[in-house]
Order: sequence, then structure tokens, then C-alpha cells
Amino acid sequence: MNAYVMLGVFQTTQKLRTALRRLSRAGLPPLDLQMQFLRRGRCPRSVALSRKLHVGADGSRSSPAAAPQRLPFSRVTVEDLAVFRKILPGRVITDPDLVQSSNEDWLKSVRGSSEVLLRPQTTQEVSQILSYCNSRNLAVNPQGGNTGLVGGSVPVYDEIILSTSFMKNILSFDNISGILTCQAGCVLENLVLYLEERDYIMPLDLGAKGSCQIGGNVATNAGGLRLLRYGSLHGTVLGLEVVLADGQVLDCLSTLRKDNTGYDLKQLFIGSEGTLGVITAVSILCPRKPKSINVVFLGCETFDQLLKTFQLCKGMLGEILSAFEFLDSECMRLLNTHLKLPNPISDCPFYIVIETSGSDSKHDSQKLHNFLEEAMTSLLVTDGTVATEDSKIKALWSMRERVTEALTHDGFTYKYDISLPVERIYQLMTDMRQHLGNRARSVVGYGHVGDGNLHLNITSSARDPALLASIEPFVYEWTARFHGSISAEHGLGLKKRNYIYYSKSGPAVALMGNIKTLLDPKGILNPYKTLPDDLK
Amino acid sequence: MNAYVMLGVFQTTQKLRTALRRLSRAGLPPLDLQMQFLRRGRCPRSVALSRKLHVGADGSRSSPAAAPQRLPFSRVTVEDLAVFRKILPGRVITDPDLVQSSNEDWLKSVRGSSEVLLRPQTTQEVSQILSYCNSRNLAVNPQGGNTGLVGGSVPVYDEIILSTSFMKNILSFDNISGILTCQAGCVLENLVLYLEERDYIMPLDLGAKGSCQIGGNVATNAGGLRLLRYGSLHGTVLGLEVVLADGQVLDCLSTLRKDNTGYDLKQLFIGSEGTLGVITAVSILCPRKPKSINVVFLGCETFDQLLKTFQLCKGMLGEILSAFEFLDSECMRLLNTHLKLPNPISDCPFYIVIETSGSDSKHDSQKLHNFLEEAMTSLLVTDGTVATEDSKIKALWSMRERVTEALTHDGFTYKYDISLPVERIYQLMTDMRQHLGNRARSVVGYGHVGDGNLHLNITSSARDPALLASIEPFVYEWTARFHGSISAEHGLGLKKRNYIYYSKSGPAVALMGNIKTLLDPKGILNPYKTLPDDLK
Repeated sequence: MNAYVMLGVFQTTQKLRTALRRLSRAGLPPLDLQMQFLRRGRCPRSVALSRKLHVGADGSRSSPAAAPQRLPFSRVTVEDLAVFRKILPGRVITDPDLVQSSNEDWLKSVRGSSEVLLRPQTTQEVSQILSYCNSRNLAVNPQGGNTGLVGGSVPVYDEIILSTSFMKNILSFDNISGILTCQAGCVLENLVLYLEERDYIMPLDLGAKGSCQIGGNVATNAGGLRLLRYGSLHGTVLGLEVVLADGQVLDCLSTLRKDNTGYDLKQLFIGSEGTLGVITAVSILCPRKPKSINVVFLGCETFDQLLKTFQLCKGMLGEILSAFEFLDSECMRLLNTHLKLPNPISDCPFYIVIETSGSDSKHDSQKLHNFLEEAMTSLLVTDGTVATEDSKIKALWSMRERVTEALTHDGFTYKYDISLPVERIYQLMTDMRQHLGNRARSVVGYGHVGDGNLHLNITSSARDPALLASIEPFVYEWTARFHGSISAEHGLGLKKRNYIYYSKSGPAVALMGNIKTLLDPKGILNPYKTLPDDLK
Repeated sequence: MNAYVMLGVFQTTQKLRTALRRLSRAGLPPLDLQMQFLRRGRCPRSVALSRKLHVGADGSRSSPAAAPQRLPFSRVTVEDLAVFRKILPGRVITDPDLVQSSNEDWLKSVRGSSEVLLRPQTTQEVSQILSYCNSRNLAVNPQGGNTGLVGGSVPVYDEIILSTSFMKNILSFDNISGILTCQAGCVLENLVLYLEERDYIMPLDLGAKGSCQIGGNVATNAGGLRLLRYGSLHGTVLGLEVVLADGQVLDCLSTLRKDNTGYDLKQLFIGSEGTLGVITAVSILCPRKPKSINVVFLGCETFDQLLKTFQLCKGMLGEILSAFEFLDSECMRLLNTHLKLPNPISDCPFYIVIETSGSDSKHDSQKLHNFLEEAMTSLLVTDGTVATEDSKIKALWSMRERVTEALTHDGFTYKYDISLPVERIYQLMTDMRQHLGNRARSVVGYGHVGDGNLHLNITSSARDPALLASIEPFVYEWTARFHGSISAEHGLGLKKRNYIYYSKSGPAVALMGNIKTLLDPKGILNPYKTLPDDLK
């Protein structure tokens, strides 16, 4: 059986031709075309063009990562566009070249075929759009900075893309409490700069900070580099304004640290990947900017020593520890080879990046000095270097932050974001290497030791269904065996939705489905994402 | 019109007499009795005794704090008791004297008339009980340590009391990650002691720690003294096991710091006061035990100076600051008068308790020294004392922690737990004093400055409806005007459920109602609590 999915519906042959030309220009793999006349009533006056799915890590039609059949949402009509133009004068984009970049994720691993990109500026506009789309049964793909890794931020078929990029106002900042309130489209790095001038920082930091938006960060419950110190967004986000599927504005935009009046509804939207509502504004508790920052890059002989170093570090650096990250020697090889980044210390099987941040540089240096002395004399670490100036701090951090980039040069990458009891983290790497033998080009591991979060990446020269079949479900079964999470921070999006049962029980997933139905009865918000296909 | 509520249903005259005697012995206010024969079918073979409500702060029938009419739940029959005894051999309590203490809250402000107290030991038992109660339409009041302040932890009428007191096993503790998993009935102080031996602490600390249970803490989203440092339970609770109204066990008992696989369902139950499910187990992230703790007790002339001291403190103590609490001179007067606690410093209008905890005592003392020098020379504080030994630390903390106790000796207390932008906290006190003139005995303010949380308490010689009418809705309207929360950490329970609209929007409350209906369609779990009477 061939699996086909609807790429788009074209009301004239002319439009169909244009679409085909565009697909060909974009250098897509050969298309299997299928012309079909749809039943009148469900999709009047239209000719449908389908092509083989290329979503997921493999493109194979049998993969649980592949998109399901297009659901029977309405198609955007000329009349719909007129309504949108009235709500958003000058901010309804239909030029295919302009819509294109919003149709594709930044890994270039999934691509939708939306023909409409909407750019509201206000909550009221988002409300009007959703109210209309809901009444017309039009599917909507909320989009922030489009930096997600699981195909959650782009349309699967022809969903209308609702971008928050034009919602970039800072609404308030309280200098006493450190509480920032802003629109969802604020780019994380802009918030960082804004706060820096006011002696504060954001409680989260990601490699993607130059493009990711705070609304998207919250919608995906982004983790990142500072979670160890400042905790998850479930703790630091104090309030949200959310527009529900039917256009209703849910105002939970509290700027209070404590509020126990009823259920904490905002929590539902943190990490729901735009499937329950569109986040339009966020209030978040920001920590004071530390007066002193140090970064240490260390080398260890074994992962066991690395874990012991982590334990020592928690005890001796205590309250100033702000990150404890690791990468293995395979990561270092890719950094050397593809990005020409030299190893700042001697070659080791494991590397650690430790960051401290505190309010007194003398105290911090002393704590760090004591810790390093202890780590060296007890032979836990074999080599290391310390940075206190900005440029060297950045250079050391880049050894950890640029692994993702190095991987893109190594070949086609299969990415896994696994959470495990910390002592298990590297056992998965070892087992995976043994399991794959020489079938993969590289099998590399890095991540957030402090959070028990491993980024396992496997590369090959090109997409390789056989290799994929060796990796999955092996990696998921291994993770489930040790009660880990198959998506620690990346979310499920399109690609991992059907793997949810490896980490969540049947009743829990069923309840998620009921909550989805309660909040979005027609299912127009970010369809095909987060929840598995076999719900109900 | 007289408002009567059902106190209990007595199947024989003998039982009715016993109940009347018990009420009289308990020294309750005079009863308005009303004998009525209920319709056969709804409540067979029974005679009902009603008496005037005495819930809420006032007892007036028109107060929004008063209980609504009893809902048409079934009454417990002999057959029901037989089923319970089969599920919980030896742990079904019906002796009125034994059930009595679970019927009344510790403030002795609300009292139910339950005749059955169930003490399950396992999740499976809770599941069987709820499954049965749901099928029989029997209402259930989940109860932890019964230390709540808003009438959420006791039955309103004859709800079956489901106590978690016998569920007190620690299930696991991971010494590397600091993740503790335990049954819901573990008393907070026992967990503190358990962790202390393992060099860890609980991320929350409350005055009620000797009796409150972790399940209840989570169900009420308890705040307490360490929230400033370690954040709310929405961040530190990593997993929950919950039994839903129909007996289904929802296993979200993750022990991972990060898990983005689907909606974070456990968040729904944090702070839902037992109305959405019964929490049976908790996993929680525990911080390392600090090596050094210091407590400072300071005096300020004005609240503005107190706020400036807070700002200075955040900057100079930074990462070692673990509490910043205040009390006013009225609190000090009550501590002196009723508990004979002497003022450890000279008399001032405002007092601050600052706690630091860190990993290096020398560093901490130095930071504290620098801070105190700066605070003194800039004339922000006028007097102060520092404690480093355990006994003196405890003595200074008791000045803050024992205010509640002092209040109970001062007279009948009207308690408010308000969250406000921190710069507004004391303005409410000033306005309230002016507003009340000399109608109250004492108007005292204390609380968690770091969290913007004021505990406003007003006493009078006895219950005083006229005074209450002066306080409410004044206090709620004032709070709403500055976008505060009318319940920062105490929750809504029975007493404050109808005030929810002062802090939450109509659509938000309606959504809460829908979630309640989704999870507990028959409404058997902790009825009359959290959600307002006018839902739907």
C-alpha cells in the first residue's frame, strides 16, 4: 500500500502548476503525484495534489513519526483571506516565497504546504483570527521563532501559520521583584539585553536564543542551560495570557509570585506545544544578574569520575553552581573536524563545562579553587582550564553549544533527547554504540548532567531506513526500561507524538486527549502534534 | 428566611440524642433545630437534624463563606460500611469520638458531621474506595494533616473522610539527584529528619510542619518560608500519583527533572485542594543541606526603608538569601503580651527576619557582615541582632513563626492571606487601620516580603458581624484594585471559594469548572470547596 497525504488543494489548474514548479525549484525528492477529485460538499471545486510524506527522521511511510492523513479541515478560500486582511491590514502573507520559510523547520526535516501566514500584533487580533478560524473549521499552526526540533512549529499540511513575530512589546518590568511581562513574540536574546541593562537576567538560556521567542519557549517548556540553577518554566512563569481555540482570551497574566485562587490553569499551556491555546503574553520571574561568572572546562577519564565530580561540585560550589554540562570525545572530534575548534585541554574521553555565578567574585573564585584542588588531588579530573573573562567564557561555552552545529556537517542526523536517572545517562550511549556496531558514522553524546538529560545524536551519510530501524524502537525501549523520558526538553511535536506511550501511561494520555477536546473541540490548534494518532 | 443546613442524618432517635449530647459537650453555640422527615427514596428511614451554619469567619447566613445547600449525594449505609471494612480491615472508623477531630479544622472555625473516617494504606485501597464511592454517589473529603486555614480539609456535611495518615512510607531517595519519592501521608517534619541524615533538606518549610503531610502540602500548593529561595511546588514537585474520582490511578510519578512528553498533568493537581483527585504519592526535588545558616533580626523605621533593605539584601546576599520575612510592631506587641516573648532588639515600627544559607560559612558571614554594615551606615535599619547557633536561630525564627499562635490568644481572628506587588503590601495595612478606626482590637501585618505575601489579621473580642462587614469586601476590593491575589498560599477551601472572582476572570473560573466536571463528573471529591457556588 502506498501512503499518500494531501499536499494542498488547488482551485485551478494554474495554481496546481505553480505549486508543482515551486516544489521542483525547492529541490524536493521526486513526487508521487495523484490527482483526485474530492467529493462535493467536503471540499468543493477542488483538485487535490498529494505527495509522499517526508516528515519524521526517515521519510518511511510506516514510521510512527510520519504524519497521519489530513483531517477534514476546511481549505482557505478567497473569502477567508478577505476576512484576514480586514483583521490584519497589510499583515496577511500569501506570497509563496515569503510563506516558504515558515513552512519548513530549521533542521529542514519537515515541511508543510501552508499558503497563508498571518502576523497579528495584538491579543485582540489573535482572538479575532481564532474565533473566525474556529467557526470556519480552519486549522491553525501557531509559530514562534520556529527553532523547534520535533516538527512542532511548522504546518503539516495547509494549516494557516499564525506567527507571533510581530508581538514583540515588553509590557512591564518591576525592578523590585524582577518580574517581566511581555508579548509572546519577544526574541529571547532581546529580553536578555533588555534585562541586562536593568541588572537582571532571564531564568532560561538556550543555544537558539537569537531567534527563539518567549511564547514558543513557554509553549514548548524549553529547558536549556540554566534549568539546574533556576528551575523549569513551570516554576518561573508567573502568568500567561492565552487565546483559546474559539477566540476566547484567557487572562492568567498574573505578576504575583504566589496565587492560590483556584486551579493553576496557566500550567496547562506550558509545554502543550500550541495545541491547547495560543500564548500571547508571558510574565516571568527574573533573577538578579550575577556579579561574577566563571566557566571551567574539565576532562575526565570515565563517566563514573564525571558523576563523582558532579557530586563534589554540588557540595563544594553549592549555591553558585549554575550549569554542569558534558560532552564526550566524539563531540570533540566533530568540533575539531567540522568547525575547526581546538580542544582547550588535553584529549580525554569526557569533558565537563561548569559555570558558576554569584554575587561576590572573590568568594566564587575561592570556592572554585577549593573545588578544583579537591577534584584534581582526588584524581577525578585529569585536565582543565578556567575562564573569567567574557571572551574566554564564550569560547569555552561554544565547545558545548556548537555541538549541534558540528553535527549538521557530519551527515544526516538522528536526534534523541533523553531524560534518565543521572547515573544511567551514559550507559545508553555505550549500549547504543555496541548495538549499532559500525552502521552509523558517528554516535555522540552530550547534554545537561545536572538535569539527567542526554542528547544522543547518531549520524550517517544520508537518510538510512535500515539504520533508523536499528535505532528505534531500541532507544525508546531502553529509555522506558529505566523510567526515563523519551523527550526531556524538545517536546513531541509531529515527529515523536506516537512515542508518547514509552513515557506516559494509557490513562494519562487519554486524559490529555480529553483536555484537548475540552479546550479545542474541533481540534484546529496545531493538529497532528503532541498527542498520538490512536487517541480514542 | 432562615438558612439551615443538614448536620447529619440519624437512623434512630437514639443516635440523634447522642449527636445532640456530643454537640452540647463540644460547647457549640445554641442550635436551631429542625426535625424533618425526608422523602423516602432519597434518604430512606432517616430523620434529619439541621442546625445553623457556623462556617466561615462570621457564621452569618448571608456570607459568601457560608456553605451552600447539601448536594444530593447518597448517605452512607450499613452496606457501604461493610464494603469499606472489606477493603480496609480494621481501618474504618465510625466511633464518633474518634471521627470528631477529623471533622473540625485546627482553627476550630468549621466543622462537618461526617460519621466515617477511612484510613487506607495503599494506592490500591484508595482506588477501590473511590471507585466504590463514585458508583454509589458518596461524597469524599480527602484529608492530610488537617492544618489548612480555609476550611478545605474537613467535611462540610457528611462527606466520608479519606485520611492519608496511614500512607507514610518513603518509597525511594536518590542520593545523587536529591529526588525523594514518598507516600502522600508522610508528615513534613519526618521527611525533613529523614533527609537531614542524608545531607539534604525539603524545598519547603512551614510552621505546621509537625502535623502537615506532603500530600496535603502539594494539594494546597503550600508556600511557606523557603519559597523565596527554592521556588514553588509547581517547580520542585517532579511527579505525582493521583487517584481520580472514579478510582482510576493516574501514574505521573516521574522522578525526572525534565520530561516534555505531552501535557504536564500533575500540575493540575498541585493546588486543587483535593477537588480533582486524591494525591497518593509525590516525588520532589530536594536541595542539598546548606553547610552554614545565619539568621538576622532587624528593625526599620518605615516600610519604605524595609523595602530598600530588601533590595540591598537581594543584591548583596544574592544566592545565599533564603528568607526575607517581616512583622510589624503590632505583632511584636502580641508576642510580648500573650507569649511573653521579649523583643530581641529595641522597639521599632517594623521588624525583618533574614535567613541566609550557603555552602561556606566564612563566605556567608562576610557577605552578611558587608550587607549589615551597608544597611546600618545608609540608615536603612536602626537596630539588629545576628544568630549563627541553632538555639538562637530558633529563637529569632519563633518571633516570626509564633505570630499566628499569639493571635489565637488575642481574640477572635479574621485572617487574610494577600499577595500584592511588593511595594503595595503595607499600604493595605495602613488603609485597613484607617478604615476600621477603633472597631477592631488588633490589626496586625506580617508575612513573606520576598514573595509579596502579606498575612493581614484582625482580632476582636468575639465574632463580630459588623466588624466583618467593615473588613469584607473592603479587603478583597482593595486587593483586586492592585491586581493582587486574595489567597496567596492558603487556598480557597470552603471559606473563600466565592471570592475567587476578585482574583480570577470569569472565563478562567468557567474553565476550572469544566476541568472539575471532566475529572470528577459526579462532583464527589471535596464538594463545596475551591470553586464558587455560582458555577454554570
